Amino acid sequence: MDVAVIVGSETDKPIAEKTTKILDQLGLTYEVKVYSAHRNPRQLEEYIQKCEAKIFIAIAGLSAHLPGFIASRTDKPVIGVPVNVKLGGLDALLSIVQMPKGVPVACVGIDNGENAAWLAWRILKLKS
Amino acid sequence: MDVAVIVGSETDKPIAEKTTKILDQLGLTYEVKVYSAHRNPRQLEEYIQKCEAKIFIAIAGLSAHLPGFIASRTDKPVIGVPVNVKLGGLDALLSIVQMPKGVPVACVGIDNGENAAWLAWRILKLKS
Amino acid sequence: MDVAVIVGSETDKPIAEKTTKILDQLGLTYEVKVYSAHRNPRQLEEYIQKCEAKIFIAIAGLSAHLPGFIASRTDKPVIGVPVNVKLGGLDALLSIVQMPKGVPVACVGIDNGENAAWLAWRILKLKS
Amino acid sequence: MDVAVIVGSETDKPIAEKTTKILDQLGLTYEVKVYSAHRNPRQLEEYIQKCEAKIFIAIAGLSAHLPGFIASRTDKPVIGVPVNVKLGGLDALLSIVQMPKGVPVACVGIDNGENAAWLAWRILKLKS
Amino acid sequence: MDVAVIVGSETDKPIAEKTTKILDQLGLTYEVKVYSAHRNPRQLEEYIQKCEAKIFIAIAGLSAHLPGFIASRTDKPVIGVPVNVKLGGLDALLSIVQMPKGVPVACVGIDNGENAAWLAWRILKLKS
Amino acid sequence: MDVAVIVGSETDKPIAEKTTKILDQLGLTYEVKVYSAHRNPRQLEEYIQKCEAKIFIAIAGLSAHLPGFIASRTDKPVIGVPVNVKLGGLDALLSIVQMPKGVPVACVGIDNGENAAWLAWRILKLKS
Amino acid sequence: MDVAVIVGSETDKPIAEKTTKILDQLGLTYEVKVYSAHRNPRQLEEYIQKCEAKIFIAIAGLSAHLPGFIASRTDKPVIGVPVNVKLGGLDALLSIVQMPKGVPVACVGIDNGENAAWLAWRILKLKS
Amino acid sequence: MDVAVIVGSETDKPIAEKTTKILDQLGLTYEVKVYSAHRNPRQLEEYIQKCEAKIFIAIAGLSAHLPGFIASRTDKPVIGVPVNVKLGGLDALLSIVQMPKGVPVACVGIDNGENAAWLAWRILKLKS
Repeated sequence: MDVAVIVGSETDKPIAEKTTKILDQLGLTYEVKVYSAHRNPRQLEEYIQKCEAKIFIAIAGLSAHLPGFIASRTDKPVIGVPVNVKLGGLDALLSIVQMPKGVPVACVGIDNGENAAWLAWRILKLKS
Repeated sequence: MDVAVIVGSETDKPIAEKTTKILDQLGLTYEVKVYSAHRNPRQLEEYIQKCEAKIFIAIAGLSAHLPGFIASRTDKPVIGVPVNVKLGGLDALLSIVQMPKGVPVACVGIDNGENAAWLAWRILKLKS
Repeated sequence: MDVAVIVGSETDKPIAEKTTKILDQLGLTYEVKVYSAHRNPRQLEEYIQKCEAKIFIAIAGLSAHLPGFIASRTDKPVIGVPVNVKLGGLDALLSIVQMPKGVPVACVGIDNGENAAWLAWRILKLKS
Repeated sequence: MDVAVIVGSETDKPIAEKTTKILDQLGLTYEVKVYSAHRNPRQLEEYIQKCEAKIFIAIAGLSAHLPGFIASRTDKPVIGVPVNVKLGGLDALLSIVQMPKGVPVACVGIDNGENAAWLAWRILKLKS
Repeated sequence: MDVAVIVGSETDKPIAEKTTKILDQLGLTYEVKVYSAHRNPRQLEEYIQKCEAKIFIAIAGLSAHLPGFIASRTDKPVIGVPVNVKLGGLDALLSIVQMPKGVPVACVGIDNGENAAWLAWRILKLKS
Repeated sequence: MDVAVIVGSETDKPIAEKTTKILDQLGLTYEVKVYSAHRNPRQLEEYIQKCEAKIFIAIAGLSAHLPGFIASRTDKPVIGVPVNVKLGGLDALLSIVQMPKGVPVACVGIDNGENAAWLAWRILKLKS
Repeated sequence: MDVAVIVGSETDKPIAEKTTKILDQLGLTYEVKVYSAHRNPRQLEEYIQKCEAKIFIAIAGLSAHLPGFIASRTDKPVIGVPVNVKLGGLDALLSIVQMPKGVPVACVGIDNGENAAWLAWRILKLKS
Repeated sequence: MDVAVIVGSETDKPIAEKTTKILDQLGLTYEVKVYSAHRNPRQLEEYIQKCEAKIFIAIAGLSAHLPGFIASRTDKPVIGVPVNVKLGGLDALLSIVQMPKGVPVACVGIDNGENAAWLAWRILKLKS
């Protein structure tokens, strides 16, 4: 599997669909999971450990800790998509992009699920 | 022990000192620990599980996930203090306060370590 | 009574309903009152003095002084919920969270009435 | 007495001095008091009731509730000066200006103690 | 006449109606005029010079120069109401409130035409 | 004369020097004047009327009405330079750029006096 | 031809129509093209090189690089119009206006296609 | 070569040094180049075409178009680092992250050159 797409809550699924539409178009394999960094931390951690995807795409709004949570538990690239729930998505953008040194998240634009897929494709192309 | 004070990095310690100065003044017992939600998630999780403090005070800047991390692993009250590292602390404030439903953090003002101590005192007074 | 839920105006009641729905679910007792820190300061002050609730939840928009007003007249924990009326709720968030040293308010997310209830529950659990 | 100048804390006094320098220049009479809306609400309320000044100038930073507190306890004009303590003073500006309907505060610019004096002068000129 | 209410464009009239509704209720006399500081500067200047109102209320959005324009051409009190056209009204708020030293505008909340009327009433009460 | 450079106050002169340094380098003729849209509106208006420069560069901070004032009194191109005095210059930027329809100002970056000169040069090149 | 109007994507066309409506009214000649600085950089570059318009108007949202791209490849005046797609258009405004020294863009207000046309007219009048 | 590190101007070099310090530590090969997307677009384009690095790290402030420029001319992964020059770096952050669909940039935190290196390492590890 190429990409694991994780959304923080059911309400973020429309953004995930933007991502998977492009992943399909690019011929990348993926699965979509719903795990909250705050409500299901242990299941999420287990999933990250056993997941065989090469890249994680994490989609979340508000205090969007999901991408950073994943990045702190794997060495694989993690792409974060901030979702506009409040404040135009500024809260999610800052929560995702302003990570501490050593634990990077690759942040794309607010609600821009498509670019997460395109970025994954650029990364996976390198490998081939 | 009344309060566990956790800072996300050594550089946040001056804010923790504002907190402990008031805790001392109020006669509350505490310990101060440095754990990053991103760099030491497993040690942090172990600490939370075995910690006997009644309240957590978590102090962090940037993508300040520390308070939310703790709140997702304990039912005890968690107080978050956003630290100004970039953008006047707006990034840390939004990362701490905009938590999803069901996993609350009690956020106080930017760099306001003192109010975290005062809030802990109000909560502990209830108990007595 | 466990919790006094106070809204700054009738228009904030939908946020209070999010709070009371969770309080009901958690089996906490409460009453809901409408008092403006600006329009009924004296009645509000009297209410605070005689109120037997253990915790206050104060819900307000714009220049949201209600939580801070209560916190300056009681030693009990005060939880503030910023309501989005203008500017995405940024005005209410900053009015509630940036309290001066010594008079803390426990701020939760914008329009997040649910988390005020969950935070109250965490605090009250300590006592039992 | 023409104007009562009230600062929320000792640290706001440099802004009050900008105000009184202009009041002196304009020949207006005044006194300067330090009262916090949060730490001394009762003394502040007593002061407002007995104060014979025609106009209040209230100077405060952070969750700047002082001008609104005064405006809710008197029918006299209240001028608010937001002070830059954090976030460039945006928190204080929004706390002062976004008052609810019926309880107006006349807000001037961030740290602009001078304009509070000039505005008081314009108002008092009307009377003569 | 007590108050001259000036709007920067026809589209700001709904905010002016909030103002005049309160002025009517308070028994204050007024007239409403449409003048843009940018499109009709000379007519506006003439109006200001000959206007016998005691107070000006100026209502404008975007680069809201109208209140400042008036304040620079009269010594009477000028009340500014920022209107939300773009950016939640933050542009108008800052354009109105951040006036240079010596030329004050009394700014009230975004779209808060009511408070402009209430503030005018407080000022006019002094005179009587 | 090619360009009239107008600053809103003496304190904005360092930004004007950035502009004139480039104008000198480009061989454009200019004069520098200090006029406040708020404190000297009549002198400023007279200056605009009689000024023979082809382009105006207006440099101002805070409620930066100077460029818009000029644009409303001439048909010549007006370039605005927002100066950082408070809030990182966001107040001046929004005051300059968000002009109403029909009265355009050509806004350049915060404190970027150089680009005002470069833009003037591009415009004047067209003419030759 | 007087003006080349370039939009970054089909979705920005309604803003271009505001521009061309005024250009028609002013009797200026123009053509409208859709080129993305990011998706069609080479075609855009070729167009800029061969284009005989005297002024460019570039309309774009989000990371609005289009006006700056054009300004870096021509010495003609470039007018930028930020479009509100996310964050009220603040992202596009800052992307357009904060250009580095030596490569100026003349920025007008958010979604204000009309003012781009009016500014072009002021510039072209100089030439005649 | 693993990584090409490009800075928009000489003044951004201290941030590039944070990046190269980590690249050295991780044993990754790189070169550092100074090219402005606005001042040297053609040289930059030539460099991108002939560059054999697997990943680009682009570091820029203000209207930070550099990362997007590169991303529009290569299919390789591009990592963007916003630099704080004005407005706390918010302008650069939004210019970098809010890219249009199809042309992704992987944005890391403001001034966080280190995380660009760490992200490059995660991506390159995949390949091995």
